[in-house]
Amino acid sequence: MPKIVDHDERRLELVDATWRIIARQGLEGATMREIAMEAGFANGALKPYFPTKDTLLEFAFGHVFNRTNQRIADVTRGKSGLPALRAFCREVLPLDEERINEARIVIPFWQKAVNDPQKADIHQQSMSEWLATIRRYLAEARDSGDVRAAVDDSVLAGQLLNMLLGAQIAAALGNGTPNPGLEEQLEGFLALL
Amino acid sequence: MPKIVDHDERRLELVDATWRIIARQGLEGATMREIAMEAGFANGALKPYFPTKDTLLEFAFGHVFNRTNQRIADVTRGKSGLPALRAFCREVLPLDEERINEARIVIPFWQKAVNDPQKADIHQQSMSEWLATIRRYLAEARDSGDVRAAVDDSVLAGQLLNMLLGAQIAAALGNGTPNPGLEEQLEGFLALL
Repeated sequence: MPKIVDHDERRLELVDATWRIIARQGLEGATMREIAMEAGFANGALKPYFPTKDTLLEFAFGHVFNRTNQRIADVTRGKSGLPALRAFCREVLPLDEERINEARIVIPFWQKAVNDPQKADIHQQSMSEWLATIRRYLAEARDSGDVRAAVDDSVLAGQLLNMLLGAQIAAALGNGTPNPGLEEQLEGFLALL
Repeated sequence: MPKIVDHDERRLELVDATWRIIARQGLEGATMREIAMEAGFANGALKPYFPTKDTLLEFAFGHVFNRTNQRIADVTRGKSGLPALRAFCREVLPLDEERINEARIVIPFWQKAVNDPQKADIHQQSMSEWLATIRRYLAEARDSGDVRAAVDDSVLAGQLLNMLLGAQIAAALGNGTPNPGLEEQLEGFLALL
């Protein structure tokens, strides 16, 4: 019988390798050859999974997004309104090493997306999902009287999302330790509502 | 007499060429050869000004930062407090084509800075200057009673800066037209204070 290969698992091994190399050496340093080596693959063995570095980068971004959403699903279970919004934001903010490494993947992806409409679309769709989530929590918080700000929820959601994205930049460019002000920024923003 | 060459001016011509090429083709597409061609230089003529693409990119980032600060100085002259803060933010937000193109330069610079401590320092210093500016305006606005939010100015300044940086991402990844929600986000934020 032929050996059974779990292709999904191998794809994730490659993404993890990509990620470690990008976090360590940057996007240009992450050649397909180095990624194969890091993942313990023979050089040619990558091609069937990811024919180009671009396809690998798109998959890696999707994986970061899904993984963040999985964590969000875990921490928001049974919550609504402001507590759910707080939990959501805390999973997106780069508050620990794992999430700082995610920021280090996301910035190269954005840079590629500046001149690649397909990647820009992927970003846009992900952000639309998050905006919808934020607005749902805000609407619940209005219903319960926790949010009373005289500013439209769509505007508040846009502000908050930009704040969360901006926080990725300082984190990815920092020395790997979380920026101590981010939790205060989140609490401060929620207090303004 | 030898021809007098204005080296500062030539450097700026090169930065403008770099910028147009990065905005059009992305960072990888901007080879030193293409930049020289775009600026009307012979291929070898770049070297005395910028020995590497990295030095050119650092200079280009510095130029964007200085140019933004020049515009800020113009629009905030004679203003203080909330009106000055509003004018400051409007010059940083990508509200027109020029500022969207600036965002397209800044994102490749950030991506490089993820693995380049010298570039990360340049970013960090620029952001420290802006944070100090924002805090000065907030302090003035507190004195005049325009800001009464029960959140520390240092926290508010961090939020606002992250919001301004986050806005660059959507702008640089968009189709070149300004995001219509940004002015509302700024006004909404100022209203919360």
